[in-house]
Amino acid sequence: MGKRADKYLETDAWSIVERGFHKEKNAVSESIFSIGNEYCGLRGYAEEGATAPSLQGCYFNGIYEWSEKETETAYRGIIKRGHYMVNAADPIKTEIFLDGERLDTGKCALLSFERRLDLRSGLYVRSFALNAGGGQVKFTFSRFLSMNDPRSLYQRIEIESSCPVAVEIYLGMDLATKHWGKAGRWTKVSSRAEGLRASLVGRTQSTGQYLAYAQEVEGTGAFEALPAEDAHAAGVRIRTAVAGKFTLTKRIACYADKTGETGGTMPGGAPQKSYEEALADNIAYYEKFWAERDIAIEGDDENLQGIRFCIFQLGQTYHGAFPTDNIGAKGLTGEAYSGHAFWDTETYCLPYYLFNDPAAARDLLLFRYHTLAQAKERAKMLDCKGACYPIATLNGNEACDLWQHASLQFQPSTGVAYGIRHYVNVTGDEDFLVDYGMEMLLEISRFLLSRGEYGADGRFGYFCVMGPDEFQMMVNHNCYTNYMAKKTFEYTVECFERLGGKVRLDVAEGELAAFRECAEKMYIPYDEESKLFEQHDGFFRLPHVEVKDIPAEDFPLYHHWSYDRIYRNDMIKQPDVLMLMLLHAGDFTLEQKRANYEYYEPRCIHESSLSPSVHSILASELKKEDDALKFFGFAARLDLDDYNRNTSEGLHTTSIAAAWLNIVYGFGGVRSDERELVIAPSIPSIWRRYAFKLQYRGRIISVDVQRGKATVSVCGEPLWAVVCGKRERLAGTREFEL
Amino acid sequence: MGKRADKYLETDAWSIVERGFHKEKNAVSESIFSIGNEYCGLRGYAEEGATAPSLQGCYFNGIYEWSEKETETAYRGIIKRGHYMVNAADPIKTEIFLDGERLDTGKCALLSFERRLDLRSGLYVRSFALNAGGGQVKFTFSRFLSMNDPRSLYQRIEIESSCPVAVEIYLGMDLATKHWGKAGRWTKVSSRAEGLRASLVGRTQSTGQYLAYAQEVEGTGAFEALPAEDAHAAGVRIRTAVAGKFTLTKRIACYADKTGETGGTMPGGAPQKSYEEALADNIAYYEKFWAERDIAIEGDDENLQGIRFCIFQLGQTYHGAFPTDNIGAKGLTGEAYSGHAFWDTETYCLPYYLFNDPAAARDLLLFRYHTLAQAKERAKMLDCKGACYPIATLNGNEACDLWQHASLQFQPSTGVAYGIRHYVNVTGDEDFLVDYGMEMLLEISRFLLSRGEYGADGRFGYFCVMGPDEFQMMVNHNCYTNYMAKKTFEYTVECFERLGGKVRLDVAEGELAAFRECAEKMYIPYDEESKLFEQHDGFFRLPHVEVKDIPAEDFPLYHHWSYDRIYRNDMIKQPDVLMLMLLHAGDFTLEQKRANYEYYEPRCIHESSLSPSVHSILASELKKEDDALKFFGFAARLDLDDYNRNTSEGLHTTSIAAAWLNIVYGFGGVRSDERELVIAPSIPSIWRRYAFKLQYRGRIISVDVQRGKATVSVCGEPLWAVVCGKRERLAGTREFEL
Repeated sequence: MGKRADKYLETDAWSIVERGFHKEKNAVSESIFSIGNEYCGLRGYAEEGATAPSLQGCYFNGIYEWSEKETETAYRGIIKRGHYMVNAADPIKTEIFLDGERLDTGKCALLSFERRLDLRSGLYVRSFALNAGGGQVKFTFSRFLSMNDPRSLYQRIEIESSCPVAVEIYLGMDLATKHWGKAGRWTKVSSRAEGLRASLVGRTQSTGQYLAYAQEVEGTGAFEALPAEDAHAAGVRIRTAVAGKFTLTKRIACYADKTGETGGTMPGGAPQKSYEEALADNIAYYEKFWAERDIAIEGDDENLQGIRFCIFQLGQTYHGAFPTDNIGAKGLTGEAYSGHAFWDTETYCLPYYLFNDPAAARDLLLFRYHTLAQAKERAKMLDCKGACYPIATLNGNEACDLWQHASLQFQPSTGVAYGIRHYVNVTGDEDFLVDYGMEMLLEISRFLLSRGEYGADGRFGYFCVMGPDEFQMMVNHNCYTNYMAKKTFEYTVECFERLGGKVRLDVAEGELAAFRECAEKMYIPYDEESKLFEQHDGFFRLPHVEVKDIPAEDFPLYHHWSYDRIYRNDMIKQPDVLMLMLLHAGDFTLEQKRANYEYYEPRCIHESSLSPSVHSILASELKKEDDALKFFGFAARLDLDDYNRNTSEGLHTTSIAAAWLNIVYGFGGVRSDERELVIAPSIPSIWRRYAFKLQYRGRIISVDVQRGKATVSVCGEPLWAVVCGKRERLAGTREFEL
Repeated sequence: MGKRADKYLETDAWSIVERGFHKEKNAVSESIFSIGNEYCGLRGYAEEGATAPSLQGCYFNGIYEWSEKETETAYRGIIKRGHYMVNAADPIKTEIFLDGERLDTGKCALLSFERRLDLRSGLYVRSFALNAGGGQVKFTFSRFLSMNDPRSLYQRIEIESSCPVAVEIYLGMDLATKHWGKAGRWTKVSSRAEGLRASLVGRTQSTGQYLAYAQEVEGTGAFEALPAEDAHAAGVRIRTAVAGKFTLTKRIACYADKTGETGGTMPGGAPQKSYEEALADNIAYYEKFWAERDIAIEGDDENLQGIRFCIFQLGQTYHGAFPTDNIGAKGLTGEAYSGHAFWDTETYCLPYYLFNDPAAARDLLLFRYHTLAQAKERAKMLDCKGACYPIATLNGNEACDLWQHASLQFQPSTGVAYGIRHYVNVTGDEDFLVDYGMEMLLEISRFLLSRGEYGADGRFGYFCVMGPDEFQMMVNHNCYTNYMAKKTFEYTVECFERLGGKVRLDVAEGELAAFRECAEKMYIPYDEESKLFEQHDGFFRLPHVEVKDIPAEDFPLYHHWSYDRIYRNDMIKQPDVLMLMLLHAGDFTLEQKRANYEYYEPRCIHESSLSPSVHSILASELKKEDDALKFFGFAARLDLDDYNRNTSEGLHTTSIAAAWLNIVYGFGGVRSDERELVIAPSIPSIWRRYAFKLQYRGRIISVDVQRGKATVSVCGEPLWAVVCGKRERLAGTREFEL
C-alpha cells in the first residue's frame, strides 16, 4: 500500500490532544478537532483567525447550492447541474485585540499551546499562553454543539493575564465566508445587534434556503459592550481591561431552514440553557453513548484511541436526528466530495448503526425512501424504469456530472436493496419492509430489470457498467453488479411471496416472474477450477500491471497517469469481487474466498480509503494475521495520522465507519448477511483483550475476547447463532475457546 | 437507413440552380452556394442581408481561436482548451436602399428569383426582380474567388430599373460578425476609407492572427461616393439615381496572416486584375480541371450533377495551395465541427487527390509532417512514445475535449500511415518516403508500440479503444485498430529494410524487431468457421438490437437515447470491420467480405454520413446491386438534397469525397491497396454509360464503361494491372467484356 502514518497527536484513551502548535498541520487539525451533532458541523478552526493553513468551515446537513455552471452536453442522461453542501455563515466569528494589537497565533510567539477534543463530552478546548502587556496572558477557547438540542452551539473564551492588559473582543456571526475559496455565497436577509444580543439571517443563492443565527453574550466583571453590524455580519464588541481572569460566554442558536418555509424570518432567540447545563447534558449523553458503543482494546493504546475517535465522529455525523439527513463522504467536516453521500452509506456505514442504534439505521434507510421520486426520475433519464439511486447526492438528485460514474454505476441501487435486507435481518423489523422497504425493492428491481440485457449468448447481465472498482470503467458482466442484482431480484421476490398481501403496491402480472427469471439467468463469471470469480467478462485477459512495482511518486494515479491508462489493465482501485464476498459472506466457501483474495489483493492499489478495511476483514477470516493487521493499522487512525495526506480537506467519515467494521467483522468475525448471526473472533497477537457490544433483534450481545477465549453474553431472549464455527443457542454468559 | 431526399434545386449538368426563393431553405442554399478557393470560403449568403434563416459565414483556412473556456478536469491527457475556425470579417458587407427603403428579399415580394453556381467558373450569381420606384427593378449579385490568386475576391452588383429610382448602396468590410451566434470575436486594428478605396485590419482574440482586407469599388455612370468608417467596419456609400442599368464592381484583397508576422500592417491594396480578367482566369482554370477530373454519367442526370458538385466542392476546399492546410469536415462552408479535420482526410479524401492531383495529395500528407511535433507532444500527454495524431485539429494540436474520443481513437494515426503507403503505392514517389514518410511511420509505430499491450493471454493488441464505429466506446482488441496497427508495423519495417540506408533517422536497436514482433503477435479476432471478423473482443456476445425496428423519431440517437444506452449492444454507427475490408481489400477473400457485409450491414445505422459510400462500394464488389444503388443515391446528392437535414450547418465536405470513392471504387471497382492497380467495373442498370480518369504513376488511365463493356486507355507507359479479374499489361486502348 505504501501509506505511512504522519503522527503528531498524543495518544490518549478518551481525548484527542495536540500539544504545541503544529502550524503546518493546522488544516489537518481543523478536520480532526471538528465538532458536530448531525444538524451542524464546525471545523476546529481558530475562531479569532490565525495565519496558518486553514479552511474555516461550518456546515449544515441539507443546506446546499446548485452548481453555478451547467455541464455543456447534448447527450442525454448526463447531469447538467450538480449541487454541493455550502460553507455556512461563521457562527463564532471572533476578533481579539490585546493592547490594540490583533491576536494571531500564526504570527506571535506562543509560550504553550494545546488543543483537546474530549470524546466524553464533545467539548473542544484550545488554549495557549503568550507574552502581552508586560506579563503573560493565557487564552482558553472552548466550544461544543449540544447533542440534545441540535440548534444550540456554545462558545467560551477565558483570558487570564498576569498584568493588566486592554482587551477588545468582537463576537459575531458572519456571512462573508468562502466556499472552494470563493466568497459571496450568502445574501444577507436581515441582521440585528442590540446590547449583548444579535441575530443574522442569510439566504442561499440558488436553493432559497435560510440560515438564521441568534447569539447572546455574557461576561464576567465589568466591560463595555458595543453592538456591531455591517453588510454581512452582526455581533458585539466587548472592551475591557483584564488583570486576573475574564470570561466571555456566547450562546448561539442556529436555525437551518431547508425548505425556505420561514421566508427568512428569525424563528427564535439564543439558547436558554446555560453553558454549564448544556455541557452537563452532553456529558450525560456521551455517558450513555459510550456505555453502549465503546470498543475496548487492551494492549494497543493507539488503536484504542483510533477506534474511539471513529465511533465518536460517526455519532457526531449521524445518529438519526432527522430523516432527511444522510452521511457525506466527509461528514460535516470539509468541502471535498461536496458533502455528497455515496453508496458507502448502506454498505460501509449502515452496519455500525444496525448494531448500535437500530432507530438511526432505520432513519438512514428512510432517506432513500424519501428520495424515491428522484431515483425514479433518474431512472427515466437513463431510459429505464423503476428507481436508480444516485452515485452522489445531498437531496436525492444525482449530483455527479461525470457520466462514466453517474450513468454506469449501480451499486447505490443494489446497495439500498442490500441495506434493506441487512436491516431486516439484524433488527427483525418486518413492518419496515411492509411500510417502506418493499416499495423501494420493487422499484430498484424494476430498474435492474429494465437496465439488464440478454447478450447474444443468452446470458443476462449488465453491459457497459462500472462496478465498485472504478479502475474498470465500461465493462460487461461485472461480477459484483450482476451478483448484487441477482440477490436483489431474489430478495424482492421472496419478500413479495411472503408479505405481498400486506402491501398495497401495484405489481404488474409477470413482474415477479420476470425478476425470478433474470435472477436465474444472471451470468456470474466464475471459473470452477481456480475458484476465481472474474471481476468482469474479460478481466482475466487484461494486461497485467505489477502493482508493487509502480513508483510511489506515481500516486495518486489519477494525477500522474493519463486518464485512459488507468483503465486498461488488471490493476484495481478497491475491492470488487472481495466486496461481494464480504457482503454475502455466507454464499462463498472459505476456499473461494482464499483463492479470490490471493488473486485480487496483489492487484489492488487501495486508492479508495474504504479498501484496506475490507481486505483486513477477509484476511482475518483467512487467518492471514499479517495482512489483517497491516490493513487495520490504516483504518483506525486514517485521519489521526493523516495517512492519505488529505485529512486537511475533511475527515474520511465513511471510511472511519469501516474501521468499526474492521474490528467487529474482522477480528470479531461477525457476519450478519444470513438468517443467523455469526461470531468467530480472533485476537491479534499484539492485543491483550478487546470487547464490543452488539444490539441484535432486541438483545444486547457483548463479546469479550482475550487470548485463547471469547466470552459472549446475551442480555435478552436466548438466540441461535454460529459462534466459533458451531451453531449454539446463546443465553446468559458463555465462554468459547479460540 | 430511412434517409430521404428533400429536393428543391433544379437538375442541371454544369450548374446548381435554385429557382424561386426557398426562404425556409435559405441556410441550406447558403451552404450549397458556397464559393471557396482553399484559402478562403464564403457561404452563399445574401450580402445585403435578408430576413431568412441564415448563417453569414466567411472562413479562412488556418484562421482560428482557442476555445474560451477550459475544460475543468484534474485528469491527465484530457484536452483543456480546444480551438476552432472562427468566422472572419465579412468582406462583402452590403446595404441597399431603394428610395430610402432598405432592401430585404426576406420581406419584400419578389417577381422572380434565381441563384446559380456555375461549376465551370466558380461564379455564384443571385438575381431577382421586384417592384420599386413605380416600376420593376432587377438585381443581379455576382461573386467569385480567384483560383489563381487566392487572396482575390470579386463582387458585382447590377441594377436595372424600368423607372428612375434613388439607390444608396453601402459596400464595406465588417468585423462585427458572429460565430456560434456570438459577436465580438474580432478586434479592429486599423481601418481607412478614402474615395472608392478602403481597408480594414482585424486581430483574433486569442491567437494573435490578423486578417487584412482592402477593397476598391468602381461603378458605371455618375454616382456620389462617401467613404464610411466606424468602430468595426470600413467601406464606401454610393448614392445615385438608377434609370436603366447601373453596375458596381468591388475587388477585394483578403490577407490572412496566420503567424502574426505582419503585426497587423496592411500588406497591399485591392487586386489589380479586373473582374473580367479574373473571371476569364477562373474559366481557364476550370476548363483544365474538368478535362482531367470529370466523371461523365449518362442516363442519370441527377447523379451526374451530384458527382460534379462533389468534385467541384473538393476543388474549392483543397487543391494543395498551402502545405499548412487540411480539409475540415465541413470544408470552409460552416461552423459545425469547428472547421476541424478528422481522420477522414487520409482515408476518405486522399484517394480523390491521389488519382486526380498527386501534388495536392503530397501536400495533404505534408500537413501531418508539419504537425509531427504536436503529435509527439500528444503522445506524451497519453504517457506514450512516438506520435499520436489528433482526432480533430486545425493546427496539429488535439482539439477534441471529449476524452473518450481524443484518448481512445487511434485511426487518425494509423490513417496517416495508411495514407503514406497509399500515396507511395499510387504515385510511386519513394523520395517522399525518404524525405518525410519514414519519419512519420517511425513515430507512429513508436506510438503504437508503446500504447499496445499484451493481454494476460499473450495476445498483443489495444485495450480501451474506440474504433471507427463510435458506438462501441471503450473496447479491447478492436479488429480495425489491431489490424491497422499490424499493417503499420509491417509497412514501417518493410520501408526501413528497403530504404533505411537512405534516411538519417535515429532508430534504436531492436525497435524494428519489436515492431515486427508486435505485428506477428497482434490479435485479430476472427472466426474461421463463419468467416466473421469480430469487431472487438466480445462483440458477438453483446445484446442484439434490431436496427430496422428503431422508430424513426429516435434518430439521431445521440439526442434521443441515454448516452450510455448507445454503447451497450451490437448496433454500430458506421462501418468498422467493413472499412478495413475496403482499405485493405486485397487481404480479404470475397467470401469473407460477403460474410462480414451480411453480418454487419444490418447492424449499422449509418449515423455517420461517411457510412453509405463504404457500404455501396462493398455491395458493388459483392454484386449486390440494389444495396449498391440504395447507398449511392445518398452519397452523390447528400447536400444538394439535404438528406441529413443539416446541410444548413455546412456541406459534408469529407463525405462528398466519399461520393467520388463510391463511383470509382464502387462501380469502377478500382482498388489501389496492392502493388498493382485493380479495375473491375460494373454499371448500374439505370446508367447508360459512365467514364472517369485516373492519374497513376505518371500515366493517365481513362475508364469508360457502358453496358457489357469497359474501355480502358492508358496514356503513358504500359503497366500491369488487374482488370475485370485478369492480370493484364495495359497499353493504349483496350476493351473488356463485363
